[in-house]
Amino acid sequence: MPRIVGMDVLDVRFPTSRELDGSDAMNPDPDYSAAYVVLHADEGPDGYGFAFTIGRGNDVQAAAIRAMEPHVVGLPVPEDAAALASLSQRLVGDSQLRWLGPEKGVAHMAVGAVVNAAWDLAARRADKPVWQFLSEMTPEEIVGLIDFRYLSDALTPEEALEILHKAQEGKAERIQHVLDHGYRAYTTTPGWLGYSDDKLVRLSKQAVADGFDMIKLKVGGSLEDDIRRLRLAREAVGDDIRIAVDANQRWDVSTAVEWMQALAPFSPYWIEEPTSPDDVLAHQAIARQIAPIKVASGEHVQNRVVFKQLLQAEAISVLQIDAARVGGVNENVAILLLAAKFGVPVCPHAGGVGLCELVRHLSMFDYIAVSASQTDRSIEWVDHLHEHFTDPAIVRAGYYLAPRKPGFSARMHDATLRRYRFPDGPEWTGENS
Amino acid sequence: MPRIVGMDVLDVRFPTSRELDGSDAMNPDPDYSAAYVVLHADEGPDGYGFAFTIGRGNDVQAAAIRAMEPHVVGLPVPEDAAALASLSQRLVGDSQLRWLGPEKGVAHMAVGAVVNAAWDLAARRADKPVWQFLSEMTPEEIVGLIDFRYLSDALTPEEALEILHKAQEGKAERIQHVLDHGYRAYTTTPGWLGYSDDKLVRLSKQAVADGFDMIKLKVGGSLEDDIRRLRLAREAVGDDIRIAVDANQRWDVSTAVEWMQALAPFSPYWIEEPTSPDDVLAHQAIARQIAPIKVASGEHVQNRVVFKQLLQAEAISVLQIDAARVGGVNENVAILLLAAKFGVPVCPHAGGVGLCELVRHLSMFDYIAVSASQTDRSIEWVDHLHEHFTDPAIVRAGYYLAPRKPGFSARMHDATLRRYRFPDGPEWTGENS
Repeated sequence: MPRIVGMDVLDVRFPTSRELDGSDAMNPDPDYSAAYVVLHADEGPDGYGFAFTIGRGNDVQAAAIRAMEPHVVGLPVPEDAAALASLSQRLVGDSQLRWLGPEKGVAHMAVGAVVNAAWDLAARRADKPVWQFLSEMTPEEIVGLIDFRYLSDALTPEEALEILHKAQEGKAERIQHVLDHGYRAYTTTPGWLGYSDDKLVRLSKQAVADGFDMIKLKVGGSLEDDIRRLRLAREAVGDDIRIAVDANQRWDVSTAVEWMQALAPFSPYWIEEPTSPDDVLAHQAIARQIAPIKVASGEHVQNRVVFKQLLQAEAISVLQIDAARVGGVNENVAILLLAAKFGVPVCPHAGGVGLCELVRHLSMFDYIAVSASQTDRSIEWVDHLHEHFTDPAIVRAGYYLAPRKPGFSARMHDATLRRYRFPDGPEWTGENS
Repeated sequence: MPRIVGMDVLDVRFPTSRELDGSDAMNPDPDYSAAYVVLHADEGPDGYGFAFTIGRGNDVQAAAIRAMEPHVVGLPVPEDAAALASLSQRLVGDSQLRWLGPEKGVAHMAVGAVVNAAWDLAARRADKPVWQFLSEMTPEEIVGLIDFRYLSDALTPEEALEILHKAQEGKAERIQHVLDHGYRAYTTTPGWLGYSDDKLVRLSKQAVADGFDMIKLKVGGSLEDDIRRLRLAREAVGDDIRIAVDANQRWDVSTAVEWMQALAPFSPYWIEEPTSPDDVLAHQAIARQIAPIKVASGEHVQNRVVFKQLLQAEAISVLQIDAARVGGVNENVAILLLAAKFGVPVCPHAGGVGLCELVRHLSMFDYIAVSASQTDRSIEWVDHLHEHFTDPAIVRAGYYLAPRKPGFSARMHDATLRRYRFPDGPEWTGENS
């Protein structure tokens, strides 16, 4: 039986702040980074995963991943749902590490990175992409992946099983649909706060020409600027294209409501992260006051418990999973099932570095085996840094193509790891640059 | 002008798991630990602070504190409210480190450790204990300490100012009262899950003899055991002593309700952490179903935003601040003001290592300058590890004495730091033990 015999953790950073790609109201100068983990097997492929950060602190994130090593090294290579469930429970349940969260922030993202690497490893060994590996599990196996603690007031194992059994019908057709057509994307490329009006208009028009039916703009810096930018974008794309806006947690309740009322004439489709991602009741209050504009959140939602409450309180009507914020595939499967239970569409957060690569697997699984629908669903697309991955996300005519290679698409090129390693890679030392 | 010229961070761990002190339903084997920080000034006293953890991962916590160094080293030694407000904002606001939370978990506890060390430094320089240093600030200065972002739907700066101005009346008398009588304590010493029935009964009787009017028992392992233990404790202390119980996040909503209904005949005063500390709506549901038993939470509540919601939802009727979980004194001042606004008494979490030392300052400040009341308020007392501090917490006849030495009482003895340093101190290497 093959075993995991080693774990490497690397601090990899990209100097994205030099170009203001990724600038928004709360994150003016991100250096997109990955605390990158490799699980070495004594035979067959290795497994790859990462936590995403925006620069400083990526070393702290890497240290948190290293703290998982005793739970992983020495284990048999996971091959099935039961082994992946057991690994996830073991990492989440460490009785001392738990204090650092529980199940939130640096400690929980570390769990997520290792769990995702284990999924990558298992899927590579099965010679399947994760979306397919996961979709082919039985409803019972899928339910077995989930830690239902703290969920039973909203979703029981029996209800989850019922959702999954219902989605068995038409599954083969939906797998074929994903292979033929992929999954809807929307693009955030036009709308970074640091971009000029000209660049915003040019990229908005380009997005429509490229086949997207929704774009997203960052807001929350200055109301006057936002009104002008949203008007320009609306003029550029016309009335049939959805425009979402994203405040990146900038506001309190009353400011969010007033700001969105001022933007309402330009028909924004959703407001994303209007306030603190921890604030279920504030999202609820905002949602009630700005309807029919939708409220979306998730990229900073720390775990399934907060997602559960956002759904229970009808505080969001678009749920944005993130592949690398929570405790990995297992917890994201729980969140997809919660969303299905409450009938809320999932439109994942992506971008950063590698998030598009990972999260497409989860949306495709959601369509095939959970929600059985793509209506009002799409995955964020930001066309940055994909060249660093061995199985990069590809969007054509507004659709993510289904990944075909085995694994979770988390692996970076060796040349990337050498060049962008922090602080000793040549990109950071200035040598050979 | 004196400056902070250096920062040291130490990983200090105590092998408490060897004795099952501190064992509860979710934390069976804690090694109480501190990620300990020293701010070195180029003249005058240094400042001391720490984040509390329970063993593994204390190195990760230490790494997160080290990440704060560029924001601190080189600054003038803070001497007043404005400087302490500015330092807190700078640490919370780091545009890249923010991603690791935001404002939660490892990253936020690191902010808290450094902010608390800065308060220790400022108070030492002012030659006052922190409770006095803080109580002597004007209402305007105190309000200036607080980051009101995400609070305005529950507490505005004007409302905070009004609370503080109202508490000006009688302040001098309350300072004298604290100096003369201290502050009520309750004790958790009898009730750890790992203790035998005999030890539980003996320590419960001892607690009453020692002058405590409330004890606390850990519950949540086995209902049968809990019924027996609570019956024994009630028989031991009689009807006039309050018994609180603490489930350390063990339950879902329905289990919490059923379990507490089974314990209700023994009149538990509060149930602490019945479920996930992130779950405002679950606490609300439990509180509604088990009244008049109170619901208490806070030691794992990540920041002011979650405390705000727990109050808004009437999900807790006892608020338990922790000195080392949130972003330090500044955020705890915000939380005390929120509690005062909602009329909910604050009964701090303490124990671990050094938490009693720190948090007494905050409760005394609350009594003197915020809530102006000690009714239904007391500070947890656990008689462990105080010998390692240069200004240890002292409880006499059920009351915490007011600390008189300058600072925040966070400093450990040099001999302790040498002995318990992990992994190289003799307590851990086995040398000289």
